[in-house]
Amino acid sequence: MKKNNDLYKVYGRIWVETQEGALLGIGRVELLKKVGEHGSISGAAKAMKMSYRQAWELIDSMNQNSKYELVTVQKGGKDGGGASLTIKGENAVRQFEDLKKRFDKFLMKERKEFKI
Amino acid sequence: MKKNNDLYKVYGRIWVETQEGALLGIGRVELLKKVGEHGSISGAAKAMKMSYRQAWELIDSMNQNSKYELVTVQKGGKDGGGASLTIKGENAVRQFEDLKKRFDKFLMKERKEFKI
Repeated sequence: MKKNNDLYKVYGRIWVETQEGALLGIGRVELLKKVGEHGSISGAAKAMKMSYRQAWELIDSMNQNSKYELVTVQKGGKDGGGASLTIKGENAVRQFEDLKKRFDKFLMKERKEFKI
Repeated sequence: MKKNNDLYKVYGRIWVETQEGALLGIGRVELLKKVGEHGSISGAAKAMKMSYRQAWELIDSMNQNSKYELVTVQKGGKDGGGASLTIKGENAVRQFEDLKKRFDKFLMKERKEFKI
């Protein structure tokens, strides 16, 4: 017989908003990390398999909705110029990943215990 | 100046699946409660402002995906017959609501502490 804790899987999603709107979620934070790694929005977009426009709009949304700029964009050049994370951007990645770890721990605990 | 913990709101969503698929979420559990209150799928559907068909499909999905029947349906009658929660159905409501309470507590704590 299967144990109850194999039957039920507790899943969840977590995200951060400001009064201005959506700020951070798993996809957005992944995008920030790719900007840090690649040094450009075009490189990050390619790594995320999204269009430059999509990536730019997400980054613009984060910069607009945050109190602080998370990504600095240098305009110009054929690939749309360089981009880098600000200290606040780096901190946003770290804080969200820590939050996500605590959330995953919460889910694992609940998953072990949930039964009906 | 606004405090940091007023700036960022941590939000989340939580749900339960079995290997068969989706089992419980906020809307599904609300529907189960309404079945218990109204004693029929039609009454529950009306209270949830959804069609009878939508409500029936959600309940069928829960019964199919659970190891145990959560709702017993008495077929027939012009309003689609009566329906009631089984003991397992009542327990599913209670367990999910308890899980939801712990999750809300987690979110409130994270919301107080999140800053970048």
